[in-house]
Amino acid sequence: MKKQALVTLKDIAAALHLSVNTISCALKERNNISPETIRKVKEKALELGYIPNSVASSIRTGYTKTIAIILGDIANAYFSIMVKELERCLKREGYVAMILVTDEDPRIENEAIEAALSKNVDGIIIFPTCKTEQGINLIKKRRLPFILIGRRMQGTKMDYIISDDVNGGYLATKYLLDKGHRNILLFSGPDYVSSAFERKQGYLKGMSEAGIPVKDLIISCDITISEKIDKLIKSTLNRRKDFDAIFTYNDIIAFRIIRIARQAGYDIPDIIGYDNIQSKIDFGFDISSVNIYKSLMAEKATSWLLARIRHEIKPDEYLNEIVPVDLHIKA
Amino acid sequence: MKKQALVTLKDIAAALHLSVNTISCALKERNNISPETIRKVKEKALELGYIPNSVASSIRTGYTKTIAIILGDIANAYFSIMVKELERCLKREGYVAMILVTDEDPRIENEAIEAALSKNVDGIIIFPTCKTEQGINLIKKRRLPFILIGRRMQGTKMDYIISDDVNGGYLATKYLLDKGHRNILLFSGPDYVSSAFERKQGYLKGMSEAGIPVKDLIISCDITISEKIDKLIKSTLNRRKDFDAIFTYNDIIAFRIIRIARQAGYDIPDIIGYDNIQSKIDFGFDISSVNIYKSLMAEKATSWLLARIRHEIKPDEYLNEIVPVDLHIKA
Repeated sequence: MKKQALVTLKDIAAALHLSVNTISCALKERNNISPETIRKVKEKALELGYIPNSVASSIRTGYTKTIAIILGDIANAYFSIMVKELERCLKREGYVAMILVTDEDPRIENEAIEAALSKNVDGIIIFPTCKTEQGINLIKKRRLPFILIGRRMQGTKMDYIISDDVNGGYLATKYLLDKGHRNILLFSGPDYVSSAFERKQGYLKGMSEAGIPVKDLIISCDITISEKIDKLIKSTLNRRKDFDAIFTYNDIIAFRIIRIARQAGYDIPDIIGYDNIQSKIDFGFDISSVNIYKSLMAEKATSWLLARIRHEIKPDEYLNEIVPVDLHIKA
Repeated sequence: MKKQALVTLKDIAAALHLSVNTISCALKERNNISPETIRKVKEKALELGYIPNSVASSIRTGYTKTIAIILGDIANAYFSIMVKELERCLKREGYVAMILVTDEDPRIENEAIEAALSKNVDGIIIFPTCKTEQGINLIKKRRLPFILIGRRMQGTKMDYIISDDVNGGYLATKYLLDKGHRNILLFSGPDYVSSAFERKQGYLKGMSEAGIPVKDLIISCDITISEKIDKLIKSTLNRRKDFDAIFTYNDIIAFRIIRIARQAGYDIPDIIGYDNIQSKIDFGFDISSVNIYKSLMAEKATSWLLARIRHEIKPDEYLNEIVPVDLHIKA
């Protein structure tokens, strides 16, 4: 069945006994139409609920003024903050955001990319799962503008903007070392996620400089919170005598560790997270964290992607930006 | 400038020296095409990055298989949880979600609705600002299926699904009364927001039953966290001898109060929030809260809206559903 018919220029013309051409010119405020007619037409258009149909314009130009944002988990504060910042930037430029969630699963990521392509979006901003290149290759085959954000992928030319994950990992580790800790536990993400791998490199550098062996100090877990992670946290806290402090891949895991330690009646370990989500969302209490410039990253990612969509960037010129980080130390 | 041309059936046909009709039938796995040809065509389609273009199908049917979700603030955990649940339901039914943020500002809400209409979405799920009816009237004029979620609007026939805000307010107040508190402060939202108004009615009922005058115990504030709220919280905490406990419009405000009390070195007041966002997101510590059934509400809102889009519901039949709530009491 066809959808409810839209209010068209013809409907406004019929209601006012004017020609479709007059209505069209009046809505565009052309000089050949009197201000009085323009006022009347606009009033009637509003009354009838006329909205210029951008689908028609999209058929003419090929553009839909829609950008897909593909991400792991919208209920994760890091992603929801990033979506808020990205939506704000896109809206300012006349674009709307389509949201597609991957659950960090490459199969769902592929489906999300196919959905975005089939909706004919003008571009894609993706926090890639990094697990396979299949989805990214599909975007490339379509020659659709896209940019990776927060994570990068190896070996192929594409736009990305990430935080300085290596230095972030290093700064976090140094901070804990400088507080006098030695056996610093790393709660890391999987190695195929670039941000997890690179934060670990920074940690390894810090530990190596301090001459501390990391054997048994690195734990690898999924990025999304699950029962599996809870078990891992519990078993880790059970051997809490083996370490003095913890550096976590992100703030969400740090909050989870604090929660589980509290419930078990343990002392809260000295801990530092990553993303500084508290800069935008209040969690009722403060933790130390590596601060990434989320608004700035959203601004840069959006303006670069839109410039590419507008063909203002040479096809063989790529944005490979690593945004500096700093520490947020809890009061 | 026109967008990068898409890979079409013609391109696949040319690459395989077959007719466009054969390609089309092969992709649809029609019986008149040999399995071998189907396999070859599908392989080539994948290789070239062919995606069936739903814009073309949308022109034929009028449907875009896109639903707009219009909400106050995606970085607010309540909204981000709801979007996660809604996106999951929509995806399962073959729809994608467009996200439009209002900042609880009726002007931006109007623009969001206009953007959604101009993108020709099939339906709208809206957490309305409730401040004016202008935006909602625009949707109604277009006779586009929509459903209000979390808040309702007075006096007009439309679909909505909300939590039982009156009872939620009552249960929260009773809980604090039963703990022996008398002067219970209400940190409420503006009266024009139905959920704020109704939660207050529940609070008033509880206080009235207990015979406690509420004079000076009700504070009204905006819904989104701002410097203004912080000031209000500070000035409220400065007269903390005037009350024994606090009930807040939502968890976000409760967390904010806890944070500010901590920073000022005050004892954390006995507090109960609303939404129970901790059921889906970990904040590192627990607060008591009125629990709303977020997944259930998302499921029902989605299935009703999609049924309406499919004309399975009579035009004059409306969903006016009030979902029961219960208490989450912190351990």
